[in-house]
Amino acid sequence: MQDRCPHRYAPLSLGRVVHGDKIQCIYHGLEFDAAGACTLNPHPPGNIPSRAVLKSYPIAEKHKAIWIWMGDREADTARIPDFSVLDNVPEIYTTKRDKMMIKANYELVVDNLLDLSHTCYLHEGILGNADTVDSEITIEHDGDDVIAGRHATNCVPPGMWAMLWPDHPERVDKFSRIRWMAPSTLRLFVGVCDPGKPFETGTGYHAIHMLTPETDRTTHYFFTASRFGVKTTDASLNREIQAKIAKMRRFAFEEQDAPVIEAQQLNIDGSDNQLDPINLSIDVGPVRYKRVLQKMLAAEA
Amino acid sequence: MQDRCPHRYAPLSLGRVVHGDKIQCIYHGLEFDAAGACTLNPHPPGNIPSRAVLKSYPIAEKHKAIWIWMGDREADTARIPDFSVLDNVPEIYTTKRDKMMIKANYELVVDNLLDLSHTCYLHEGILGNADTVDSEITIEHDGDDVIAGRHATNCVPPGMWAMLWPDHPERVDKFSRIRWMAPSTLRLFVGVCDPGKPFETGTGYHAIHMLTPETDRTTHYFFTASRFGVKTTDASLNREIQAKIAKMRRFAFEEQDAPVIEAQQLNIDGSDNQLDPINLSIDVGPVRYKRVLQKMLAAEA
Amino acid sequence: MQDRCPHRYAPLSLGRVVHGDKIQCIYHGLEFDAAGACTLNPHPPGNIPSRAVLKSYPIAEKHKAIWIWMGDREADTARIPDFSVLDNVPEIYTTKRDKMMIKANYELVVDNLLDLSHTCYLHEGILGNADTVDSEITIEHDGDDVIAGRHATNCVPPGMWAMLWPDHPERVDKFSRIRWMAPSTLRLFVGVCDPGKPFETGTGYHAIHMLTPETDRTTHYFFTASRFGVKTTDASLNREIQAKIAKMRRFAFEEQDAPVIEAQQLNIDGSDNQLDPINLSIDVGPVRYKRVLQKMLAAEA
Repeated sequence: MQDRCPHRYAPLSLGRVVHGDKIQCIYHGLEFDAAGACTLNPHPPGNIPSRAVLKSYPIAEKHKAIWIWMGDREADTARIPDFSVLDNVPEIYTTKRDKMMIKANYELVVDNLLDLSHTCYLHEGILGNADTVDSEITIEHDGDDVIAGRHATNCVPPGMWAMLWPDHPERVDKFSRIRWMAPSTLRLFVGVCDPGKPFETGTGYHAIHMLTPETDRTTHYFFTASRFGVKTTDASLNREIQAKIAKMRRFAFEEQDAPVIEAQQLNIDGSDNQLDPINLSIDVGPVRYKRVLQKMLAAEA
Repeated sequence: MQDRCPHRYAPLSLGRVVHGDKIQCIYHGLEFDAAGACTLNPHPPGNIPSRAVLKSYPIAEKHKAIWIWMGDREADTARIPDFSVLDNVPEIYTTKRDKMMIKANYELVVDNLLDLSHTCYLHEGILGNADTVDSEITIEHDGDDVIAGRHATNCVPPGMWAMLWPDHPERVDKFSRIRWMAPSTLRLFVGVCDPGKPFETGTGYHAIHMLTPETDRTTHYFFTASRFGVKTTDASLNREIQAKIAKMRRFAFEEQDAPVIEAQQLNIDGSDNQLDPINLSIDVGPVRYKRVLQKMLAAEA
Repeated sequence: MQDRCPHRYAPLSLGRVVHGDKIQCIYHGLEFDAAGACTLNPHPPGNIPSRAVLKSYPIAEKHKAIWIWMGDREADTARIPDFSVLDNVPEIYTTKRDKMMIKANYELVVDNLLDLSHTCYLHEGILGNADTVDSEITIEHDGDDVIAGRHATNCVPPGMWAMLWPDHPERVDKFSRIRWMAPSTLRLFVGVCDPGKPFETGTGYHAIHMLTPETDRTTHYFFTASRFGVKTTDASLNREIQAKIAKMRRFAFEEQDAPVIEAQQLNIDGSDNQLDPINLSIDVGPVRYKRVLQKMLAAEA
């Protein structure tokens, strides 16, 4: 709902919920229902002007997130990205639903996520290492979704994966498969397994990345993870592992990704010329999703 | 006086007063008198260029404040707003002369003050409560002044008034009468009395609100209060009450009014469209003073 | 070297030096040599696109500073300003090589330095005092250099000079000679001696001021000093004096000059009108160097 009382423009988010389903303006006490209609002017004579209406947006709750339709089109819940990996998951296997703000355009964050080669350098020791540089890269399209895969064989497991798997072998295969779902949500299936074995025998997590652009230069970043192939039944150890996954991921995003992404944005904005990036093999994911996104934006315009 | 030395533009406010009535520039020691004339160039040969002159503004000290005329017109001390309630008041009955900065246009602060219905919501429990919503609203014009009154009968006294009146009755009448004096000073007569009794039998304070616009989006807010109808002769208790009035008012302005007013400003500035507020009965004060103000601005232009 | 990887625009300054003389991008591990050529794309197939080149600037190390040529012209080490007073100086006679940032255009800092009359007021008690106001001012041109001198006789030595010279006489002559070397480096010969005696018999320091404009409104300020005419052979006392010189100069620049210079800039930028400063006898240095600078800028354009 529009965060601006039509009376004197105080933000309704400073107010409070009253009578179960009304929002009361903090400033003069006007009340509004979920559809945005003013239902109470508490001041005598209590008349409600016809213009006392807020714009209200449809929302849906699904996969433990709230989805909002800001545009003019009808809400279509069928188009909510598939994060069913978050449904019906035992609490012990999912990490804190966390969030942060990144001072950059959301596309730079998508670029970061859809090219996981950066884990070998930026997150070296935690999420990747020198052994994982030489990966087989795959790219798939599934409707509008773009899926980028990386597969590295016979690697010393990076810190996150060594931590996840208490009795891990000395060397592992590391696999990741990240799916971009327009415009800015991503689902990553990532883990390690015994060299040469199928992914299903391994352990890892489904990493959830939901990006909500706030402005052209600020992005809300929501993230969590849900484990698969858990290798120990020790509940207290699993609890400890969950906490460490959450902490290490937040560290990687906040202390490593965000500074680089925000510096990229400053470099781009500070350039006198229109920049034209160089594309390497690792950029196939970013290149492909941008094409889909451009097509969608063009269709909308 | 203009805060910019004509020599190298250092602010004279960084300098110091010398010889009783001269201001010395911190940077190179040039001295200026109250009229803005350079009276000393300390550097040989000591010549004083004809352009070494500052713009100086007339001021007057009255009602414990300093009044400045920034415009081109002659100073007219007869037009200083009447804050004589501050003159000759025993120290024990007036609160700290306090100040803060509000990051909003001064008109939003005047709107806030001239519509005291917001005390029932924004300052609920301190300056107003549910019982004071149903008030009789009055509006008067006195020359260019606009006076808005609110009168609520048979109310549980809000926190400030219960505190002020140690043996207060269970229910009171609450009265307030706020006078806007162009362009941005306000004097409020506010208090409580036994239900049905004349105001003069009650207790309360004259609240002083002086707004000095700094920029289009910042306002200096000066405030104090002077009690009337004091109900106890206990000096130590009165001292405690004075301190609590000052503290509660500062809390109300700083923690409750300022955040809402600054958020209003952001909402107004952030809107793509020209906004057109809805006016309710409570807005009669703001509507009326804006008319007077517009007329004055038009006359000046 | 340009601080922007041509791949995804991450700043290379966030990266690290590898293999002795390569810089590795923090984001995806691309490596570049000192000439700006990409020497490694670590990601299979390892191809290096022809556009993977950084702009690299010539530098030279001389007089304990690094000099960079940002423009299009050839580097010409013969044009490095003469700071040979810093070469081959015993460590005990030079102060910390210090730096700070000033939020103002570099010209305001040059103006400050080339008119040392301000030491009598802004740095009163430390670098100047009332006795040093009445100075003989000299001005010389040496090629493009501008040299401004101040000579005050029979003064109580200001704090810095009293501190420097443990058995100083009650009164001294104070001399300073500051050389501007285009566009923004300055070398100051400053000290005190027995009244009427030649400078060579005195004690003081060569003060080094190197200004590197960062933007139109920010300037890197690098400074140090190298003593001459040291009056004591006590090594521990000399060490103490060195530390005090560094500390007092930093105090003078950071707590006294910077606030005034930054306030000048705000006053200039905040003025509706084009300002036209008044020039006094003390401004001969600033007036002269600006003429040389304007001529150079015109020639370059």
